[in-house]
Amino acid sequence: MRTIKKVGIVIKPHAPLVETLLKELVDFFAEHGLESVLEDVAAQKLGRPGGLSRTGVPGASDLVVVLGGDGTLLSVAHHAAEAGVPVMGVNLGRLGFLTEIPTSEMFLTLEAFLADGANLISPRWLLEVRTNTTIAQCLNDVVITKGALARMIEYAIQIDGKEVAALKADGLIVSTPTGSTAYSLSAGGPIIHPQAPAILLTPICPHTLTFRPLIVSSASAISIGILTGEEEVYLTLDGQRGGAIVRNDVIDIRKASHELQLVTSPRRDYFDLVKEKLNWGG
Amino acid sequence: MRTIKKVGIVIKPHAPLVETLLKELVDFFAEHGLESVLEDVAAQKLGRPGGLSRTGVPGASDLVVVLGGDGTLLSVAHHAAEAGVPVMGVNLGRLGFLTEIPTSEMFLTLEAFLADGANLISPRWLLEVRTNTTIAQCLNDVVITKGALARMIEYAIQIDGKEVAALKADGLIVSTPTGSTAYSLSAGGPIIHPQAPAILLTPICPHTLTFRPLIVSSASAISIGILTGEEEVYLTLDGQRGGAIVRNDVIDIRKASHELQLVTSPRRDYFDLVKEKLNWGG
Amino acid sequence: MRTIKKVGIVIKPHAPLVETLLKELVDFFAEHGLESVLEDVAAQKLGRPGGLSRTGVPGASDLVVVLGGDGTLLSVAHHAAEAGVPVMGVNLGRLGFLTEIPTSEMFLTLEAFLADGANLISPRWLLEVRTNTTIAQCLNDVVITKGALARMIEYAIQIDGKEVAALKADGLIVSTPTGSTAYSLSAGGPIIHPQAPAILLTPICPHTLTFRPLIVSSASAISIGILTGEEEVYLTLDGQRGGAIVRNDVIDIRKASHELQLVTSPRRDYFDLVKEKLNWGG
Amino acid sequence: MRTIKKVGIVIKPHAPLVETLLKELVDFFAEHGLESVLEDVAAQKLGRPGGLSRTGVPGASDLVVVLGGDGTLLSVAHHAAEAGVPVMGVNLGRLGFLTEIPTSEMFLTLEAFLADGANLISPRWLLEVRTNTTIAQCLNDVVITKGALARMIEYAIQIDGKEVAALKADGLIVSTPTGSTAYSLSAGGPIIHPQAPAILLTPICPHTLTFRPLIVSSASAISIGILTGEEEVYLTLDGQRGGAIVRNDVIDIRKASHELQLVTSPRRDYFDLVKEKLNWGG
Repeated sequence: MRTIKKVGIVIKPHAPLVETLLKELVDFFAEHGLESVLEDVAAQKLGRPGGLSRTGVPGASDLVVVLGGDGTLLSVAHHAAEAGVPVMGVNLGRLGFLTEIPTSEMFLTLEAFLADGANLISPRWLLEVRTNTTIAQCLNDVVITKGALARMIEYAIQIDGKEVAALKADGLIVSTPTGSTAYSLSAGGPIIHPQAPAILLTPICPHTLTFRPLIVSSASAISIGILTGEEEVYLTLDGQRGGAIVRNDVIDIRKASHELQLVTSPRRDYFDLVKEKLNWGG
Repeated sequence: MRTIKKVGIVIKPHAPLVETLLKELVDFFAEHGLESVLEDVAAQKLGRPGGLSRTGVPGASDLVVVLGGDGTLLSVAHHAAEAGVPVMGVNLGRLGFLTEIPTSEMFLTLEAFLADGANLISPRWLLEVRTNTTIAQCLNDVVITKGALARMIEYAIQIDGKEVAALKADGLIVSTPTGSTAYSLSAGGPIIHPQAPAILLTPICPHTLTFRPLIVSSASAISIGILTGEEEVYLTLDGQRGGAIVRNDVIDIRKASHELQLVTSPRRDYFDLVKEKLNWGG
Repeated sequence: MRTIKKVGIVIKPHAPLVETLLKELVDFFAEHGLESVLEDVAAQKLGRPGGLSRTGVPGASDLVVVLGGDGTLLSVAHHAAEAGVPVMGVNLGRLGFLTEIPTSEMFLTLEAFLADGANLISPRWLLEVRTNTTIAQCLNDVVITKGALARMIEYAIQIDGKEVAALKADGLIVSTPTGSTAYSLSAGGPIIHPQAPAILLTPICPHTLTFRPLIVSSASAISIGILTGEEEVYLTLDGQRGGAIVRNDVIDIRKASHELQLVTSPRRDYFDLVKEKLNWGG
Repeated sequence: MRTIKKVGIVIKPHAPLVETLLKELVDFFAEHGLESVLEDVAAQKLGRPGGLSRTGVPGASDLVVVLGGDGTLLSVAHHAAEAGVPVMGVNLGRLGFLTEIPTSEMFLTLEAFLADGANLISPRWLLEVRTNTTIAQCLNDVVITKGALARMIEYAIQIDGKEVAALKADGLIVSTPTGSTAYSLSAGGPIIHPQAPAILLTPICPHTLTFRPLIVSSASAISIGILTGEEEVYLTLDGQRGGAIVRNDVIDIRKASHELQLVTSPRRDYFDLVKEKLNWGG
């Protein structure tokens, strides 16, 4: 792992206590001889000039700290993965599956990371999504869905060049293991450990009652064709980026070459998170 | 039941064989001394002038025959219920839960109905839906849902004036027993026999994993408040009529005073339909 | 409602604090001029001679108080229903769907009930179950299931004399609305409000993937035939009473003529219970 | 792959047409200069002396042909995996997920296999299951379940030495991808492609409503402890072999070192099977 000299800071601007924590964080880095690379909204909060756009922060940093929720982390994750920069998520409210560090453990975790970072890294692979017009990467999921007043969509699902099903459904979620605890879970999907090399396809309201969530090897190439000609179809990445897609477009999805280096807590592991978030402890 | 003198005919204009069946149907009624009351698109197909709008047909008829699918029948059902006119659905393609008469049994069923109609009537109650601006009725379901790119909606569900749950979900389906085999089934809902006096609430992709389909007495008054202030929210009736709704609007739903008199086949009953449509026969 | 003179007390003998509460309860009734009718294990705890068998308590009482959990209440519910005696359940541990009175509200609820009992009664209908050899009643559910090492069972389900499905499954739960939050919920069933006049059939691990929980009117007569000839089949009532059943036996299930008068809290209603037990509050 | 000289034949004795096919098969092998190694019940059908026990057939063969259903194939699969002998399943009735060769394609597939066997092999890894007293292997699944009249079991699930959950449920299925379309599917589990390196844990009737099927890497070590002290607990392998297990026993499950070489059809692949069996084609 690279030596940490510059630490990017990305924030959810309206989260409670974000300003106080931001100041403490900048002071902490100064005391440790590290330079803070501020997102523009963070610079404003501190009354400093400049700052970078959120997407520009990872490229100028050796580590990115996110103060916010899972949504904030997702907005910067694919940029950090591309830049090869680790990301640490500090949740300002409820425990997140990605932002698992509570504010009370922020400095403790940073100390541990600066001492021995490799040990706290949980590598998370991303999906690469190609349409006729765009290429993008996502950490959680790709969602293909109908408009609110439209009827179902008919999807042609191909795995490794082989047609698997003509699925009639409201939508289809293609997810990494990391994303299995996000939207897919609401749609009835299973939970996949982040280190399982598997891609998850979860239908949303399938009209074919025998259709179930489908798991294939992460080495598989997935191709989704939209057979419906009349309805509006939307593509959303990580619940954030997206838009209407061109009719009869084909969406190609496979494991991306980049991985996110997610900094995890020395105090909890993946199943601790699941137990706490889903109340599995009994 | 009233004496049948005038029979309304409503059609799905582009269905296969619709023109042939329409002619046969009009001839059949003429031979039986009955007047055919044609929907405008049906009149066009026969090269006749005039014809009524679809919604105008029930009020001018003693019986309405629908040539089409469940969607065609749903588009005229609430008008027929209000007018107190029975509806017989002849499916031009696949067997429908509402259009259960195949073309091969059309005349047989009409003969049976003209001889002893009361025996073939399956009464189906409707839901009445009120918002601040509209009152409407539906035979299958009311669906409240988010826009395609929006996040989940937070619903406040009240039953008989009592708050039941603050549901976070993509959508909520409030359904009659008749509608339980329509959209609700795709969202994971149970099957309710049409004569069970129960209203069904099925969540779409609930974020609260412990939320399950909920069934209350058909005597209950249901009130759905939208707690989300920023997102677009859509209301759809019977999968057909709808639009964006006003934020912070409250949707009141209860059993309507009108019932649809659905003409069913002398050759199959409700569970025959379920068995055939869902392949329950084993 | 009858005048309360004698109060039966039924206990879960090994529950924490049961002895202390039992003494307080007996003292409370003495102070109010009421006679305590003790179950034999309760009499023993107080060092008193005699006491009645649990099943004998309702017939000798005008009200039965249960100190225990839902299981304790279920063991006495059908006897109380037959005797027409109200039952109040005080939970000694976790809140139950039937034993909804916490110990802290025990006296408050008794005072309220003695002052105006009718107001706190939630009537709960039971199912009557007939096999070739027995007739029994249950408040929650009838479960027909295979032996642990056996394969699935094939069931012939009839509703009102009409064959509905040939179901292949591990088991089948036929439940009242009251029972919908018990075993059926674990098997994927919906939640039915206790006042909805509906019977619920929930399959356990159905091999027919399109089989869903099925709800019929509480006026329906249900008949379950066991088509499997070789495997052991078990019948369980309310999760407690049961045994192996005779092969090729037919199980007839319908609404019983008796109702349980369940005493509920003046401080919470059904949906408060659901919200608290299932964490629906959000 | 080894040269094929001796072909074992294992049969489901009472399947329709089994005798005819068996004769044809033995003749086919004789014509191709191959020796038939008969299971004892097969030898009897042909009026020949001797024959081997089913479990003894793989060790004396270079290929095993199964005439029967998935159950027949499962009964010999772990022996064949240990012996390193490929298995070809010919279904005598309905298409099976394992016995995918219809009788009409039996000779065609054998010809193809003898010409270029490696091309038709689908490797399927097995699970190794250890208790205090036994070690065994299974191709589909390990099921830990309660007795028919018992209550739920409480399981302590460990993954790689870490406690994941205290699950209360009727049972727990630990399955290979191959087994995902067997019992797990009835219990609500997802479908996992056989080549995905993942182990599936599917609960049966979980009392914890937030518990979902869980997928971990096939490199994981799974350990299931039984916390319930009073109830009977049963272990079943591949739906066939099993028995009551010792209380407080711990069941260790991991990927076995042996793989089954399953002979598949040149005419259909995995997803063709899924489409046909689950009616996914639309």
